[in-house]
Amino acid sequence: MTAWDRETWDALAKIRQKRPLIHNITNFVVMNTTANTILAVGASPIMAHAIQEVGEIAAFSGAVLLNIGTLETDWIDAMITAGKSANARGIPVILDPVGVGATRFRSESAGRLMAEVEFAIIRGNAAEIFALAGFHSRIQGVDSLQDSQEIKSKAVEIAAELHSVVAITGAEDLVSDGRNCYGISGGDPIFKQVTGTGCAASAICACFAAVEPLYLKAAAMALAYYKSAGEEAARLSKGPGSFQMQLFDALANTSRASMENSIRIRQL
Amino acid sequence: MTAWDRETWDALAKIRQKRPLIHNITNFVVMNTTANTILAVGASPIMAHAIQEVGEIAAFSGAVLLNIGTLETDWIDAMITAGKSANARGIPVILDPVGVGATRFRSESAGRLMAEVEFAIIRGNAAEIFALAGFHSRIQGVDSLQDSQEIKSKAVEIAAELHSVVAITGAEDLVSDGRNCYGISGGDPIFKQVTGTGCAASAICACFAAVEPLYLKAAAMALAYYKSAGEEAARLSKGPGSFQMQLFDALANTSRASMENSIRIRQL
Amino acid sequence: MTAWDRETWDALAKIRQKRPLIHNITNFVVMNTTANTILAVGASPIMAHAIQEVGEIAAFSGAVLLNIGTLETDWIDAMITAGKSANARGIPVILDPVGVGATRFRSESAGRLMAEVEFAIIRGNAAEIFALAGFHSRIQGVDSLQDSQEIKSKAVEIAAELHSVVAITGAEDLVSDGRNCYGISGGDPIFKQVTGTGCAASAICACFAAVEPLYLKAAAMALAYYKSAGEEAARLSKGPGSFQMQLFDALANTSRASMENSIRIRQL
Repeated sequence: MTAWDRETWDALAKIRQKRPLIHNITNFVVMNTTANTILAVGASPIMAHAIQEVGEIAAFSGAVLLNIGTLETDWIDAMITAGKSANARGIPVILDPVGVGATRFRSESAGRLMAEVEFAIIRGNAAEIFALAGFHSRIQGVDSLQDSQEIKSKAVEIAAELHSVVAITGAEDLVSDGRNCYGISGGDPIFKQVTGTGCAASAICACFAAVEPLYLKAAAMALAYYKSAGEEAARLSKGPGSFQMQLFDALANTSRASMENSIRIRQL
Repeated sequence: MTAWDRETWDALAKIRQKRPLIHNITNFVVMNTTANTILAVGASPIMAHAIQEVGEIAAFSGAVLLNIGTLETDWIDAMITAGKSANARGIPVILDPVGVGATRFRSESAGRLMAEVEFAIIRGNAAEIFALAGFHSRIQGVDSLQDSQEIKSKAVEIAAELHSVVAITGAEDLVSDGRNCYGISGGDPIFKQVTGTGCAASAICACFAAVEPLYLKAAAMALAYYKSAGEEAARLSKGPGSFQMQLFDALANTSRASMENSIRIRQL
Repeated sequence: MTAWDRETWDALAKIRQKRPLIHNITNFVVMNTTANTILAVGASPIMAHAIQEVGEIAAFSGAVLLNIGTLETDWIDAMITAGKSANARGIPVILDPVGVGATRFRSESAGRLMAEVEFAIIRGNAAEIFALAGFHSRIQGVDSLQDSQEIKSKAVEIAAELHSVVAITGAEDLVSDGRNCYGISGGDPIFKQVTGTGCAASAICACFAAVEPLYLKAAAMALAYYKSAGEEAARLSKGPGSFQMQLFDALANTSRASMENSIRIRQL
């Protein structure tokens, strides 16, 4: 068992033991699968977006996840309220900037969030993270990916600029806190054939951030565990429908033994 | 075949033959799985929440289900309109007070519903039902459970206080109409690893209430059938993903033969 | 391989190669399964309904799908904006008039859409299409079906009246552009036991319309491919839960070989 295997297992065991409440303000497409992902990991999901209650809920959560897919103005207001409530208490807030850069509305909304809330981790694909960082990328849908050496070299720069751990997911995931940078390999191309698998990655980052205060480490371990479970699910599935089902099983069934030699994190 | 087996089978057969329309105003997380649960049972789901149409829809439904997860103020207004429309016609209204007690907004919203609508069945976990009854419970997320002798002894009292059949679900479900009380055993711990399984229990109560005017009996049979199908699904599954899939199959495939000796209802 | 097999395969291959963006403004119940359906076919889904961004998104889409289940007034406004944006650019717009005829609100909302937007394809069950055409049908829920010789003879008339290709799905699907009419046979009764399978049919029509400008042909091929995949899924499933899973796999796994002799389109 490598050091990363052991640390990732310890963090997962801690999630399952403490069952932190993860407060999600997320999009309609993935609410069900995000809740099931969080349950499969071993944490406790709550989905709530009414401005009347999000401040209270964020305050007793272990982490808050804000996801801007299927965006509406009212929801951004609620996200800011929840984010500020969490910020005031040192509770980590995770941002999933779905589709930022695709429309002016999404970019402006993401800008409002960035201005008002401090994020522990921002997770997106390369196009989204570049757009958020002002590199003026154009994206096609929400699943596009531009994986290149250039992206790797910019991850550290972007994290420093955004004052947050940044996780750029793709064939190889990159996480950086503005100084260090890790690469996480593994996974399977079938992830891209199922909606919400990126959103689920963000949710798993939230689960790990709820128990691991070094958010760079939390994000790296979360994504490596997710890729590992995805490999197991891909082995057992025959297409995107069975992959989705197997993925929940694999996340829930991950044991110390199955995690051995499956966590592929390397410092870049 | 016990008397409960036979009566539960007769009610299920009636649902499948009449296919009552179940009008749901429910939360975003479970809309899809609730609709699929109702279809698997054999009834016909409709999800509609616009205040312009909910009165009409409730009026031609066999039962109305109101669920306050992912709550918004407009939705409570629609729930009251739908509930009153159903009440005026003697159509049973079922309440699932998701997360009541967790925030002031949910408690006040549930209070508005209780004041304006008469419920045939109220189904929740112990923390939710206690909160609704004013026992000032504090809940952790929406899946917590406090199963104790004290709960059992209070079920009758709460049902009398709330003027409704009350169903408290957990390891053993309890249903009471304020005078009688039944316990329903069975099920499987994996239910708690899948989101919306509590909401689905409420939906199945609605299906049975649409064909069985004794709501205490309807709730007991609905929950016993659900636990029985859940046991079959658990036997065939390897984790929460496959359990969810198998649960739909098991609900749909329940036959007179498979129901034999699987309905575990006892008078307390 | 028949001519229809070959043409349908060519269109599917084109979808998988070009991965057109399908912009969905659809109901809460089916957002997840619709996105997964579109991914399984091989296109790229985006779900967005905010009036601030739908015009932009529609403008860079390959097709726009408007679905009026779980309707709200704001959403109709967004649908009109998206529809007009697509119309102005010659991008096909598909309508799924879920539940039209069931309430005054749905009928009026559908009427607004019909008045403001030009549709390439309108897909619904017989009750919905009849209601839309002003035949004053009454529907029970959204899954009812009235399959008769009378329906067949009226399909052409309705399409002419609605100035759109009309697809009436049921045991045998009918598609007409107001002059020609095709019947598509196959499928499986289990489709009706899973929520959103009608909505998915509309989504597949949108995928095909994005690559095939003859919308009558696009709709016929889309529905025949869907029925064919559904037959394969039904063979491998044991109930509605496993059918849903197998259906995603079958849509994704359809190959030139598996399509051979499975496309059953006939001119009526």
